[in-house]
Amino acid sequence: MSRISPRSPIIFSQSTLLRKPPPTEKKLECTLEELCYGCVKQIMTSRDVIINGITEQQGEMVNITVKPGWKKGTRITFEGKGDERPGYQPADLIFLIDEKPHLFFEREDDNLVYKAEIPLAQALGGCAISVPLLEGERMSLSFDIVLYPGYVKIIKGQGMPTAKEIGKRGDLRIKFLINFPMSLSPEQRFDASSILKDCSYLDFL
Amino acid sequence: MSRISPRSPIIFSQSTLLRKPPPTEKKLECTLEELCYGCVKQIMTSRDVIINGITEQQGEMVNITVKPGWKKGTRITFEGKGDERPGYQPADLIFLIDEKPHLFFEREDDNLVYKAEIPLAQALGGCAISVPLLEGERMSLSFDIVLYPGYVKIIKGQGMPTAKEIGKRGDLRIKFLINFPMSLSPEQRFDASSILKDCSYLDFL
Repeated sequence: MSRISPRSPIIFSQSTLLRKPPPTEKKLECTLEELCYGCVKQIMTSRDVIINGITEQQGEMVNITVKPGWKKGTRITFEGKGDERPGYQPADLIFLIDEKPHLFFEREDDNLVYKAEIPLAQALGGCAISVPLLEGERMSLSFDIVLYPGYVKIIKGQGMPTAKEIGKRGDLRIKFLINFPMSLSPEQRFDASSILKDCSYLDFL
Repeated sequence: MSRISPRSPIIFSQSTLLRKPPPTEKKLECTLEELCYGCVKQIMTSRDVIINGITEQQGEMVNITVKPGWKKGTRITFEGKGDERPGYQPADLIFLIDEKPHLFFEREDDNLVYKAEIPLAQALGGCAISVPLLEGERMSLSFDIVLYPGYVKIIKGQGMPTAKEIGKRGDLRIKFLINFPMSLSPEQRFDASSILKDCSYLDFL
């Protein structure tokens, strides 16, 4: 309770209309599995609060219900739950969703991308691969076509949930990387060249 | 000559210190050859000028000496050569260097990148290619190693001039794209796979 003397500058308009400070931002790291199936995160936060005019640190448990389909950059705002400073409104507390790197997948919007490395012999001669799925299982796939660098096989509905449409999921995109031989003997080079020289070739666009 | 009465607000500081308007910006498209060897560009510009209090359009020929090594984004400023507006200083005229797309090359800083597409038969069996140079000649190169997608052959000193060091030039980077066969017969697949299956393979990092 501060008393204002008649000669003080007029500051009471500022004390009734307190300014809002910038929010307190914290990152909330989630795995792709958590962002796919949703989860509840319990986070212990600490913030400055003013009790009887003295600034103290106070801990508080916050529950965040992560919804299926949330993306990196999603913001969850707790109004007035940030730091308190004398002469200011309490700051907002904002959690900013971040994606933990995944062992197998990269996220591209609602799709997941899995990079499959296969040797050139299998790219030309056919191959069977085992692809991980986000739920932990694996899917077996076999190819008897020529697989070129950058070839993409799409598995529908095995990506991330579409936040706007409940129950819908993006795709799993299997992108092929072709490993080339380190070296070939003159005979191998001659034979490989003879087999492949009269083919029709795919051009880059 | 305006007379200031004792009751006028003090505005003479604004009338003697005219404000500078934002500059007039124009793009100046140059070929990679022009940016490599330098050239003189004659440009007909038109701008608003104030003559006896009346705004008129006036044409003017401007000479710009493009120096070897200039890059996209280089700014050439002609002070006070932009549009004139009453109550303002004349604007500056700025030319912003832009690169015309080249038939063969992309510029990466001081280097030029040339993409060489070869069929898989030549990537494995060896090949000879003819690479264009910026001066208009061509360079013949032969390879008896396995060329993989993304393999880069560097030709020193055939890039763009280094603006900071007179006489020095960046490199020409020949980047290989490997065309794959559209399809193979069962026999071709079996034979190709047999030749390549016991090789040591380069892994992606």
